[in-house]
Amino acid sequence: MKSYREEIWFNTKGRRDYINITETVQGAINKSGVKEGLCLVNAMHISASVYINDDERGLLKDYDQWLEKLAPHAPVDQYRHNNTGEDNADAHLKRQIMGREVVVAITDGKLDFGPWEQIFYGEFDGRRKKRALIKIIGD
Amino acid sequence: MKSYREEIWFNTKGRRDYINITETVQGAINKSGVKEGLCLVNAMHISASVYINDDERGLLKDYDQWLEKLAPHAPVDQYRHNNTGEDNADAHLKRQIMGREVVVAITDGKLDFGPWEQIFYGEFDGRRKKRALIKIIGD
Amino acid sequence: MKSYREEIWFNTKGRRDYINITETVQGAINKSGVKEGLCLVNAMHISASVYINDDERGLLKDYDQWLEKLAPHAPVDQYRHNNTGEDNADAHLKRQIMGREVVVAITDGKLDFGPWEQIFYGEFDGRRKKRALIKIIGD
Repeated sequence: MKSYREEIWFNTKGRRDYINITETVQGAINKSGVKEGLCLVNAMHISASVYINDDERGLLKDYDQWLEKLAPHAPVDQYRHNNTGEDNADAHLKRQIMGREVVVAITDGKLDFGPWEQIFYGEFDGRRKKRALIKIIGD
Repeated sequence: MKSYREEIWFNTKGRRDYINITETVQGAINKSGVKEGLCLVNAMHISASVYINDDERGLLKDYDQWLEKLAPHAPVDQYRHNNTGEDNADAHLKRQIMGREVVVAITDGKLDFGPWEQIFYGEFDGRRKKRALIKIIGD
Repeated sequence: MKSYREEIWFNTKGRRDYINITETVQGAINKSGVKEGLCLVNAMHISASVYINDDERGLLKDYDQWLEKLAPHAPVDQYRHNNTGEDNADAHLKRQIMGREVVVAITDGKLDFGPWEQIFYGEFDGRRKKRALIKIIGD
């Protein structure tokens, strides 16, 4: 069994952002030499997500607006977590909706994807250096 | 390490549906010959889910009603994604609540499940051919 | 390829609770002897979650309050599932927000985690014996 590990770093300009990382993940699979296996991609921070959905500009705005409706940022004093001096409680909530990680199949050395599947890093508390992990196992 | 891959196809009559695929997944595990390993089951479309919960008719209706409350289908012009000419933005949102995939343990050649765990394909934009992927690795 | 399996049992005093199980999972990895691989941790019950986020007392209260807002327990007759004689339909909904499982990377025999990642068992219908599964594969 082979295994491979790689980190991807981000530093978004805005508090929230949605970044397509599909090519980077496929690049890691290429480097791993794994032809049949599983690939885990997860946020290493607890106020960010890795998820799979469409790379369509309108949808990314819909997600952003919807998440803000389900778990609004303000007023920040509605959350007890923000009593610690942070203002990012909403980011911890938004991340649970979108998920921490994806596990994807590797078949014949490629991401085994349907027609529109794209891997995204979803940032909900950016403007600082943060990272995601790619871990690959297989043969 | 062994690996095995299988696709399951669906074509639901209604826009939304919830289909128990547990036996099909166990059948794939049998064909794989894997006794100890992991089984990934994921929607290959971005407006559908694979999730694990109860096969109870009332609960399936509760899910449907709840998802429609959290991410309503209409009015369709509330979503920018629908400016593309589609009307399925809500399906992309509902799928994030229910999740894209499950990863399940295989122990002694069986789905290693608690008493009520059942695997479902959740369709949120049906009435066309769509599919899920089963990928199994192990020994 | 090595594999390892362990169950963790819970019996919470309250209906809902959030229990940090990170050390137990690391202990299972130590027992498995796996240095490079994947570790699946999942609730074996369909009214509970395993998720990764911060071990901060305020945030745990924020989650609890937020989940109760998105999927309220009462009135219990708002859910058809409760016509079965149960009163836990809300727990099946809350669990979908927080997720059934996490898959974590094992690197050099350790949970390959970012600085604040902690694994939690989230109970939404406790006061009885319930359990989670740890399944590890790798070399």
